[in-house]
Amino acid sequence: MMRPVPAAPVSVPDPTPDLLQRAAAVRRAAMGLGRLSDAERRQAVEAMAAALEAAADQILAANQADLEAAAADGLAPALVARLKLDAAKLAGGIEGVRQVAQLPDPLGVRQLHRELDQGLMLERVSVPLGVLGVIFEARPDAVMQIASLAIRSGNGAMLKGGREASHSCAAILEALRAGLATSAVDPAALELLTSREESLGLLKLDGLVDLIIPRGSNDLVRFIQDNTRIPVLGHADGICHLVVDREVDIDQALRIAIDAKTQYPAACNAIETLLLHRDAAPAFLAAALPAMAAAGVSLRGDAAAQALGVSEAASDDDWRSEYSDLVLAVRVVDSLEQALDHISRYGSRHTDAICTTNASTAETFLRSVDSAGVYVNCSTRFADGFRYGFGAEVGISTQTLPPRGPVGLEGLVTYRYWMRGDGHIAADYASGVRSFTHRDLPL
Amino acid sequence: MMRPVPAAPVSVPDPTPDLLQRAAAVRRAAMGLGRLSDAERRQAVEAMAAALEAAADQILAANQADLEAAAADGLAPALVARLKLDAAKLAGGIEGVRQVAQLPDPLGVRQLHRELDQGLMLERVSVPLGVLGVIFEARPDAVMQIASLAIRSGNGAMLKGGREASHSCAAILEALRAGLATSAVDPAALELLTSREESLGLLKLDGLVDLIIPRGSNDLVRFIQDNTRIPVLGHADGICHLVVDREVDIDQALRIAIDAKTQYPAACNAIETLLLHRDAAPAFLAAALPAMAAAGVSLRGDAAAQALGVSEAASDDDWRSEYSDLVLAVRVVDSLEQALDHISRYGSRHTDAICTTNASTAETFLRSVDSAGVYVNCSTRFADGFRYGFGAEVGISTQTLPPRGPVGLEGLVTYRYWMRGDGHIAADYASGVRSFTHRDLPL
Repeated sequence: MMRPVPAAPVSVPDPTPDLLQRAAAVRRAAMGLGRLSDAERRQAVEAMAAALEAAADQILAANQADLEAAAADGLAPALVARLKLDAAKLAGGIEGVRQVAQLPDPLGVRQLHRELDQGLMLERVSVPLGVLGVIFEARPDAVMQIASLAIRSGNGAMLKGGREASHSCAAILEALRAGLATSAVDPAALELLTSREESLGLLKLDGLVDLIIPRGSNDLVRFIQDNTRIPVLGHADGICHLVVDREVDIDQALRIAIDAKTQYPAACNAIETLLLHRDAAPAFLAAALPAMAAAGVSLRGDAAAQALGVSEAASDDDWRSEYSDLVLAVRVVDSLEQALDHISRYGSRHTDAICTTNASTAETFLRSVDSAGVYVNCSTRFADGFRYGFGAEVGISTQTLPPRGPVGLEGLVTYRYWMRGDGHIAADYASGVRSFTHRDLPL
Repeated sequence: MMRPVPAAPVSVPDPTPDLLQRAAAVRRAAMGLGRLSDAERRQAVEAMAAALEAAADQILAANQADLEAAAADGLAPALVARLKLDAAKLAGGIEGVRQVAQLPDPLGVRQLHRELDQGLMLERVSVPLGVLGVIFEARPDAVMQIASLAIRSGNGAMLKGGREASHSCAAILEALRAGLATSAVDPAALELLTSREESLGLLKLDGLVDLIIPRGSNDLVRFIQDNTRIPVLGHADGICHLVVDREVDIDQALRIAIDAKTQYPAACNAIETLLLHRDAAPAFLAAALPAMAAAGVSLRGDAAAQALGVSEAASDDDWRSEYSDLVLAVRVVDSLEQALDHISRYGSRHTDAICTTNASTAETFLRSVDSAGVYVNCSTRFADGFRYGFGAEVGISTQTLPPRGPVGLEGLVTYRYWMRGDGHIAADYASGVRSFTHRDLPL
């Protein structure tokens, strides 16, 4: 895994001829994959699952080698837990691959169907992106998940896992390719990158790689966004807010605040800041101070919140912090407008919520907050592809342009305009000999 | 206008405090604009048109000042023609603004509507991007067009026109803002940039500007793509191909080739290269050599094409050239696969076409070519927003991710997930107290 040093910029070297050649091979295989049918791609993913089962012993042995190296290096226990693959976790991963095989085909969806003139038919149809570049931490299960999503959606993939998982990743990729060899998909569609130089080179493969998906620390994502021209699917920060309006069900707002902060504090969709309307702050904090303390949450407040009993002070840095921990900043605001200004200034356009009993305030909030998710009277923790019913999640994007928010398989596709004519030429329309009908047809 | 020097990279300075402040003001105004109704935005665009009419004398006088400066500077006649705004051209531009007002609203379109659980409702709704940064050449009519598209789609805009049109652009922008002052839209939503430093600074306004739309030379677009983290809508190259298959109606293919090359050779959707199947090349060229000569087209061929009568030789550079002129490269290929390889290697993913009478070859071509437009038996010149029936065209994008191809108003919007609950928290689903229904509702 790359370890960016924010102060001294890492220089990104040009890809080596070897990497360029391998990327071109992935692209060629991906082009063939993109032409296959739904059934062929589904079968290929099933074959990947079967091959993982057949290679279970080798994969577990490779993981054991990684674990021994990790023990020798004194890897932190949380990272060892992620790295470790036992028979049950491997079986769970294989089950996940089978679930991806069953997801509806994201390709070949007709989005537009229009007669431009008699015999001149325009369609817009979903097609694969091409090749994905995926950089992830030392999590062997991520290789299985991402590879199956890529093949299901007709894309090739260049995968770079964390260094600590190198034996595991190599064994899994060998199995996945063995599975593909029994399918219509060229095994060259999946390629493993193994060195730091290669993962840096990946960032410069514009024209060969169409989307980079970083799964890792905020620093890693920011480094990648700053060092590639290839579009990046992901988010560097998840600074989510919960606004408690002046007209509010205090009990409900408190339940939501506790869930949004504590249900999984390390998640990007957990809240980092509470914005309390001045009129509701005293009653809310009277209930929240003991409840948050009981839940182990430390509060940091502005002067007004401190006057109402929050013991620690919040600084400007707190409004910009993704704690990923049981810490919550609290600010008292004079108005909805002030809350909106705060979110606009400090938010990361991920997910922001309001608790209010006033329908008009709710509508103003929904229309004003420029985040991927804008919620009323529910927890920000619902911002998740599985909870949205997408079946699988590639990641959560905080970019402004689509795909945005939790991204499922449909984030791995683009579209192409197909036009079929019978000798139609533009000059006939410029001269007025023919004219366009622009008649929409059933999709 | 920026004049990039490809060999010695231009350093992009940080935006000045003044520019940052103005960008923040545009953004605030844009946030208000984004909350307005369809009728309010439509009325605002109508008010812009009326204000342009009322200010016609001032605008024409300002244009006269630009023309006099251009004459003193010895500006090239083609550029003067673009710069010049007479009463008729202004009236045409104003009519274009009124047409934009009448386009269907791209905002508030519900793309997904799903019950996640009883009382927990998810919607995905189209919303404005925020602020557009538009850089264009010395064309006063472009200010009117882009400003009206921006306001219609709920976006603010920072506009930078070519230096030679500075008086015209200032007069038009003053009128547009006067029009907005009689509408629900804050006139601060439109801002004019006037210096080279400001247009360079625009490239670094990430977080304040959401999309850059460069309308100008390929060099300008490439410079911008290389120097900003903000998404860019556009294309640096339009290298379009026409493949003549072995099974082909020669007369039809020739008609299409002549249209695609000559109907408007400076357009990005004109073809630059003909790929002739070996079996069809002799008959095709026998007809094409005199026809192309009569149309004033110079051909440059590979050895096989030269052996069939093409007089000039093509080098590797020709396959990479966008001539924007009556020049056409010709290559003879052994197979469809070789044609596909050529397009994949040298194309710019803009628009590529095949002429074939074989339905299976046509389908292979449609599924294999990774360009925004893939056509069968018609001219590449149809790749255009108006011809596609979009009513207006923002530009043509050759990015892989959407928006791709000719982009209409819908390219200026994104989406937001709205969720409305009644105290729903994630812990209840994790514990199994509640479970998701994931029931799709009518859009």
